[in-house]
Amino acid sequence: QVWSEQDYSDLKVKLGGCYPFSHYFRSGVIGSGLCVFSRFPILDTLLYQYSLNGYPYMLQHGDWFCGKSVGLVIIKISGIVFNVYVTHLHAEYCREKDAYLPHRLVQAWELAQFIRHTSKAADVVLLGGDLNMHPEDVGIRLLRGCTGLRDAFAEATRFEGCEDGCTLVPNNCFTIKTELLPFPLGIRIDYILYKAISSFTVTCEELKTTTGTVPGRDIPLSDHEAVMATLHIRRQGQAVGAAGGTAEPALADVVTEARLEVAVGLRAAQRQRYSTGRMAVLALLLLVLQVVGALGTLGGLVAGQPFPKLSFSLLAFLAIGVFLLATALYLFHAIEVKMLQGTEEQMRMVLRALQEHP
Amino acid sequence: QVWSEQDYSDLKVKLGGCYPFSHYFRSGVIGSGLCVFSRFPILDTLLYQYSLNGYPYMLQHGDWFCGKSVGLVIIKISGIVFNVYVTHLHAEYCREKDAYLPHRLVQAWELAQFIRHTSKAADVVLLGGDLNMHPEDVGIRLLRGCTGLRDAFAEATRFEGCEDGCTLVPNNCFTIKTELLPFPLGIRIDYILYKAISSFTVTCEELKTTTGTVPGRDIPLSDHEAVMATLHIRRQGQAVGAAGGTAEPALADVVTEARLEVAVGLRAAQRQRYSTGRMAVLALLLLVLQVVGALGTLGGLVAGQPFPKLSFSLLAFLAIGVFLLATALYLFHAIEVKMLQGTEEQMRMVLRALQEHP
Repeated sequence: QVWSEQDYSDLKVKLGGCYPFSHYFRSGVIGSGLCVFSRFPILDTLLYQYSLNGYPYMLQHGDWFCGKSVGLVIIKISGIVFNVYVTHLHAEYCREKDAYLPHRLVQAWELAQFIRHTSKAADVVLLGGDLNMHPEDVGIRLLRGCTGLRDAFAEATRFEGCEDGCTLVPNNCFTIKTELLPFPLGIRIDYILYKAISSFTVTCEELKTTTGTVPGRDIPLSDHEAVMATLHIRRQGQAVGAAGGTAEPALADVVTEARLEVAVGLRAAQRQRYSTGRMAVLALLLLVLQVVGALGTLGGLVAGQPFPKLSFSLLAFLAIGVFLLATALYLFHAIEVKMLQGTEEQMRMVLRALQEHP
Repeated sequence: QVWSEQDYSDLKVKLGGCYPFSHYFRSGVIGSGLCVFSRFPILDTLLYQYSLNGYPYMLQHGDWFCGKSVGLVIIKISGIVFNVYVTHLHAEYCREKDAYLPHRLVQAWELAQFIRHTSKAADVVLLGGDLNMHPEDVGIRLLRGCTGLRDAFAEATRFEGCEDGCTLVPNNCFTIKTELLPFPLGIRIDYILYKAISSFTVTCEELKTTTGTVPGRDIPLSDHEAVMATLHIRRQGQAVGAAGGTAEPALADVVTEARLEVAVGLRAAQRQRYSTGRMAVLALLLLVLQVVGALGTLGGLVAGQPFPKLSFSLLAFLAIGVFLLATALYLFHAIEVKMLQGTEEQMRMVLRALQEHP
């Protein structure tokens, strides 16, 4: 995840020797750029933009401007097809009252669907990224349940790095200390997940995170610690496609839990759609009243003192401003409602299918 | 393509007898709804939203509000896996000066990539929809070249319906007659495309379009004529994956042509980004000047007659309005520039790959 295309160009020059192949995924207004550097040729790429990603008017959070999406890069190493997915989900700003949970769940759901549908010809699937979810959160269980991806940290034979594999740690100078007060060791929100599709098995030999600052300097490499995994891929005689079947009752529970959260988000979005729509209508009514009043005054139909010009024009401008702003917000929330409805319905369909064919 | 979810529900009730399985894809603010009705169970679905789709401020064209996207529905009929894609691309309002051509080309490109990446486990691929392109347009050649899809109209053994397979015909009462003046027979912009992926072959036995009005009534079924294809699918011994290889030099030409159009769109978007950005900065400067002036008057620092209050406040409100509007437009065009750049770069990569491995 780099902020600007310039950063990507700089990295490309610096890494060109070891990692001659790279791809930059554009999205959003600023930065956003997911990018991938590879020692092996990149055969193909695809970008999928999540349908929801916070609110443009939450300027202090800024996620909307970064345009969250998932990038797919296809690489072939000694005849084995790797589908490598990179992504960054919406940040969590307040764990107790996480207003963005429904959006992040929609993203996790869309990520899972995208991986399922695009990885059918792959031998090995890898997902790396800042998922902004703790290891036990519903979103990560949903993602893992739907795709069958395994957590490199949990599976690693050897581990080296921050305690508990944390990637957002309090002694990084870019983290906000108060947010990490309940988690003295930090939290693990950056992941490498993997699975083998066809007749391969993947095991994680080693997982490492960076710790602390750049050698010889005072600043850390990034606001998160980096995660590195060494994976061992073995060709084996038979496919293990049926291995995921045992987890289905658990999957139904996770989807139910996620669907509940999406439904909560849906109701909130419907309320906001309603209130912004009402405000737009009220502003329009005020404008109509003013136009009628002005016409009346002009035509000399209304006796007595007309409104003072100043307040009258101020009010008109205010009404126009409120009308435009409320209309834009109404449209935004109308789209949000649709996307949440769509996801909730898809989850309902999956649940029905799970119940019908256990 | 239905306008409202209510229409979908009505259709579902009416078609439930023959087509018990259906799916509705939500996107955009109004309607938008792609929907699919099927005699066979729908196993899985996925929605992909195009990154560009016209401009929200082009209210008279309205495409932006409908949220164009492509829906995938996976169906299995007697053991054969069908990936059925439905879509609707941005309309063409003026063929001579088609401002939406770059957006439509980005959509056609994304559609082709999406089909390629999601159809790897399918036996048969079907694409149906209003592509808003004439049969020889660069977008349809791009789509067909990248995916290997074949045009059911061109391949059909028997054809029945409007002359030349036209689906937008002048004697439909909903079409705008002046737009069709150069095409007295109408135009063919609704397609059924298909291909077989693995060891299957598909042939089109019959293609039909509706003609004219509902029997016994005066109004046509829709603003476009409907297209129906009867396909014959045969299992065959060997795969025919190499058949597309001969068309590669032609593909390079088509991608070059499309890339040129996208580059033209990119320059237009960059110009609009620049002019909206400049307007936002100017409005901000005006506001700053006003604030300085107001503070000066309040502090009694400026001698002489201050501005009349009315014009002063009107100007301030105007400046705020222009600033907000110009900022919103700037953000929109900044995203547009990014998406056009991304597509142009992808096309460049594909061209390089085509030249390196002919």
